[in-house]
Amino acid sequence: MAAVEPPPPPTPTPEPNMNLREDHPNPTPLYTRIRLATPSDIPFIHKLIHQMAVFEKLTHLFQATESSLSSTLFNSPPFQSFTVFLLEVSSTPLSLHHSPTLSLFQPIHKTLQIPPSNSISDSEELLFRTDEGATIAGFVLFFPNYSSFLAKPGFYIEDVFVRECYRRRGLGGFLMRAVANQAVKLGYGRVEWCVLDWNVNAINFYKKIGADVMQEWRICRLTGDSLLSYGQPNY
Amino acid sequence: MAAVEPPPPPTPTPEPNMNLREDHPNPTPLYTRIRLATPSDIPFIHKLIHQMAVFEKLTHLFQATESSLSSTLFNSPPFQSFTVFLLEVSSTPLSLHHSPTLSLFQPIHKTLQIPPSNSISDSEELLFRTDEGATIAGFVLFFPNYSSFLAKPGFYIEDVFVRECYRRRGLGGFLMRAVANQAVKLGYGRVEWCVLDWNVNAINFYKKIGADVMQEWRICRLTGDSLLSYGQPNY
Repeated sequence: MAAVEPPPPPTPTPEPNMNLREDHPNPTPLYTRIRLATPSDIPFIHKLIHQMAVFEKLTHLFQATESSLSSTLFNSPPFQSFTVFLLEVSSTPLSLHHSPTLSLFQPIHKTLQIPPSNSISDSEELLFRTDEGATIAGFVLFFPNYSSFLAKPGFYIEDVFVRECYRRRGLGGFLMRAVANQAVKLGYGRVEWCVLDWNVNAINFYKKIGADVMQEWRICRLTGDSLLSYGQPNY
Repeated sequence: MAAVEPPPPPTPTPEPNMNLREDHPNPTPLYTRIRLATPSDIPFIHKLIHQMAVFEKLTHLFQATESSLSSTLFNSPPFQSFTVFLLEVSSTPLSLHHSPTLSLFQPIHKTLQIPPSNSISDSEELLFRTDEGATIAGFVLFFPNYSSFLAKPGFYIEDVFVRECYRRRGLGGFLMRAVANQAVKLGYGRVEWCVLDWNVNAINFYKKIGADVMQEWRICRLTGDSLLSYGQPNY
């Protein structure tokens, strides 16, 4: 599924959630970090993709297992094929140095001044707790695509997802921007993703950051039995 | 640019071009072969992409050079990243064994019973002549994409192009089918591409082969100065 979570505009100085303000008159910092995922993050990635399927009411299409993710992700160096960034959050500062993939990608840190949501379920939080004591709040899955006119690679963002209790804080935009930033670093020509045509909030955000929404193009998808049938070597 | 050439349905027993029938009462065989491109094919690929830009009236977007293609293609083993199949045609049988990439991909042969078009320009033909004496008639450029719900790779077809004098013979479909065939061989979950919403002939063909045309999704593209600006490390 393509980037369906409508990321609100990134908010360098975010407004506190007004509903929570009375309970939390003094917003505390929320430390966030985007880092490369590693094979040991597969259980987190699996749970996040499942939550995305639930959010999109598409659980009937959800077939991923930890094993199938494990055998299809992390087979190439990051950025050369399917790549996952994880978003971590913590109420205490996140280490600037602890990251198994530090040499491949310098994690991006950002501190938000937003009170923690009071809707966070402790039992769900535990499922997303890292060894370092941070919490996995979301992810972005992307991979290289190619423009033959530019003769340059780009990135295609397949998924952006932020867990429900961490939404409306600009974190989806934070993840997308990390991909755009990496594309610029590598001298790539484009970043592309998809949006549903009725998702006006997301479309407005994408236009605001300068993206073109291609009105005339339609994606064609050949899958399942149709693919098996058409793809037979029967020339 | 995505698969814009509207491939007519593959025709196992193609009808001769009626306009040419009087001139060519006895159709002669046209031997065709799809094989993996190699770095030495860059000049062909460059000319084909340029012809595609002319065909799409998008030459103002065409920036590819042989050098930029050379530095961005063929950096990974075929199918793991950007991959090009070339379509060769010849009036004499094409070798079943001569191919520098035989171990990576078994070329696909097909013989058509269609008279050669009389609109072929000899000077242009020379530009597309291979060492073996065949003629490059078209290409498909594709690369892996990923479905997180399936936890499976797929292929995304970025370009399908057949030179004008070889169109209307099902060769665009032949190229697409070679990609679908490779996806099936590798156990991949999907083949995807794009089509312009007004290209009714192409859409009908794609539906006929079993593809879903996703009506609600729109592609968003961040490129040029907008990408440079949004992708700055300014969190």
